Amino acid sequence: MKPFGDLVSRHEALKMIEKRITTLKRVEEVALIDAVGRVTASDIVASFNVPPFNRASMDGYAVHGSDTMDTTSTTPRKLKLVGEIHAGETYVGSIKLGECVEIATGSPIPDGADSVVMVENTKVNNGWVDIFEAVDTGENVAPEGEDIKKGDIVINSGDFITPGKLGAIAALGLDSIKVLDKPRIAVYSTGTEIIPQGQKLKPGQIYDINSFTLSAVIGRNGCESIKKRIVWDDYDTLKNEMTEVSNYDIAVFSGGSSVGSKDLLGSIIEELGEVVFHGVRVKPGKPTLFGIIDCTPVFGMPGFPTSCLSNAYVFLTPALRKIAGLPKEEPRTTKARLTRNVKGSPDREMFFTVRVEHDKATPVYKQSGDITSMAYANGFIVIPAGSNLEADSEVETILLN
Amino acid sequence: MKPFGDLVSRHEALKMIEKRITTLKRVEEVALIDAVGRVTASDIVASFNVPPFNRASMDGYAVHGSDTMDTTSTTPRKLKLVGEIHAGETYVGSIKLGECVEIATGSPIPDGADSVVMVENTKVNNGWVDIFEAVDTGENVAPEGEDIKKGDIVINSGDFITPGKLGAIAALGLDSIKVLDKPRIAVYSTGTEIIPQGQKLKPGQIYDINSFTLSAVIGRNGCESIKKRIVWDDYDTLKNEMTEVSNYDIAVFSGGSSVGSKDLLGSIIEELGEVVFHGVRVKPGKPTLFGIIDCTPVFGMPGFPTSCLSNAYVFLTPALRKIAGLPKEEPRTTKARLTRNVKGSPDREMFFTVRVEHDKATPVYKQSGDITSMAYANGFIVIPAGSNLEADSEVETILLN
Repeated sequence: MKPFGDLVSRHEALKMIEKRITTLKRVEEVALIDAVGRVTASDIVASFNVPPFNRASMDGYAVHGSDTMDTTSTTPRKLKLVGEIHAGETYVGSIKLGECVEIATGSPIPDGADSVVMVENTKVNNGWVDIFEAVDTGENVAPEGEDIKKGDIVINSGDFITPGKLGAIAALGLDSIKVLDKPRIAVYSTGTEIIPQGQKLKPGQIYDINSFTLSAVIGRNGCESIKKRIVWDDYDTLKNEMTEVSNYDIAVFSGGSSVGSKDLLGSIIEELGEVVFHGVRVKPGKPTLFGIIDCTPVFGMPGFPTSCLSNAYVFLTPALRKIAGLPKEEPRTTKARLTRNVKGSPDREMFFTVRVEHDKATPVYKQSGDITSMAYANGFIVIPAGSNLEADSEVETILLN
Repeated sequence: MKPFGDLVSRHEALKMIEKRITTLKRVEEVALIDAVGRVTASDIVASFNVPPFNRASMDGYAVHGSDTMDTTSTTPRKLKLVGEIHAGETYVGSIKLGECVEIATGSPIPDGADSVVMVENTKVNNGWVDIFEAVDTGENVAPEGEDIKKGDIVINSGDFITPGKLGAIAALGLDSIKVLDKPRIAVYSTGTEIIPQGQKLKPGQIYDINSFTLSAVIGRNGCESIKKRIVWDDYDTLKNEMTEVSNYDIAVFSGGSSVGSKDLLGSIIEELGEVVFHGVRVKPGKPTLFGIIDCTPVFGMPGFPTSCLSNAYVFLTPALRKIAGLPKEEPRTTKARLTRNVKGSPDREMFFTVRVEHDKATPVYKQSGDITSMAYANGFIVIPAGSNLEADSEVETILLN
């Protein structure tokens, strides 16, 4: 394999990733309260009707609808008040013609009655109720099973659980459900110059950045990041780690994949498995690498923090969402005017960070080594290879976070 | 206070909420890896330059730029190779005119050298390196402090920590930082008909839905939901709970706020504190209530699941984001064509749930009592009071989740 011999386009890279990553099949049971944002692992079927009984959908009086025919605000009908039903209670007995029962929203409609007159259209008077409104059979009543019918598949296997779907599952009385496991993603920062936070910098050393930004992206896309130690990028150390990536669902290395004397990632992956692509026609982030070792997808991200994070948004996010079974991300975009000319790359698609404020997009990109390019950006624009953009031109910005 | 005597508009309601809720001041220290999505509680200042040294931004040879003047691909200059520097190492000694050192990306530029010739434009030959490219002073070098200068405020107090900002904090070597506490939001479902999941339904009973959907919304907006028990909506029980809301940063009750015989929430809040508004000109969700008890904001959400969740998106979300110090939510919207006529409300702004697929918006709203209206929706449209929408008309849909 010759690194960068044959760069692929972003589109090609994404297609290869899509093809080689499959949604996890491992399942765990979680308490319902923790299930939002997860993905169901089986169909959820209603074992009873919801609502489980004919239910008043208004406060008022349960009546025989036929008793209210032709009543109006000026020609009321008088019905005998024979009781009251609060939510959570059931009425013992049956309502006869000429009778009514006071009923609270959510309470079961008593036998005999078929509709509810809203309290606003009534007047109680000494054991009798004046009805000032005609109601049809079924009016102001939510019939049993109106919302969900016994036997309905309420939530499909593989559904992403939104707050609304969580509510539907709660309605079925389940207190835990089966969901897909969170994929476990191993994150390695490689480089002999990288040291962990808390240690004192020696000359030539810098602090680990990429394992933090990668973990943040991983956590926000339905996966669990397992932060591994910082790895020296010598052959033995890297190979040793690489032989253990099958303990994880995806492994992400940053650093160690450009064309230097120490760029071993690609060769070790080739040795232990398969390099799917190495080198993408994007800027920043040309050295991005994707391979498979023992069925575990392995990403090699650029070492430069801005390149690493930019490529994590572009290439890693779709991989994470697919393995976790999450729906594809729908980017939020906004149109804004560039505050200055921007030069694209002659031969690579460019992801150019900007800060959008009040419909103005100000470039914040400095160098691919600069994390502040990403810290101060709230969006990026995609500049096709060979294009330049002029100040004041309108650009479509993909908003971050 | 007369409930619903004087409905406020959505806009007025949101203004009152905005005015009465202040961002939490309590602070906690969290490990850096857990800080993404949180809000900084103090300025973060750089205690050293980043990068902390002049750094090679390419693999190649560190040289005196003046040595490469006038070299081209056909007229190379030969420099003596005096050593190599890998990342994490420093070079002992100084590079003289006529000399060069092999250098890896990220390594410190040695004394004497001022620029880097890319490896692609060189050829090593028996202790000498042919240079085929002229470089200016500083070329392919990221100077010390280029990214962040010692003393810079890198992250401001109150900033929302994105993956990019997390990276900038990591670059400073901090392994923990001070962030705003997650506001603790108490969630109560009220109603004698409501029972917890896992118990068997008796006639007239239904399962708790709202505390799940509310908790989901709370968790997604930077707050911690404290799920309280289901509360019977009698005066003593409710009042007892209400006297303890000051243990929480916000309290959210669902149910118990429409005009029935058991609608006590408003009166108890008035007794113990202040009702700010009770009743909003929106559909669903007219009975929504907002008050203050002992400085703790209290929401009364409608009992019907769809109304409750819809109003949680509209009114509770901005309150949660403000108390947590999160930036305002920027809704994702899309344009779609309605698949059928939709009747708005004559006197209330309507939040109408739809399912958007392939640029078509299909109404899914059934009854405000129906949770499936929300479970199957992936967006909603806002219909002004007194308006109707025709089939095939283009509508702006606010996407959910």
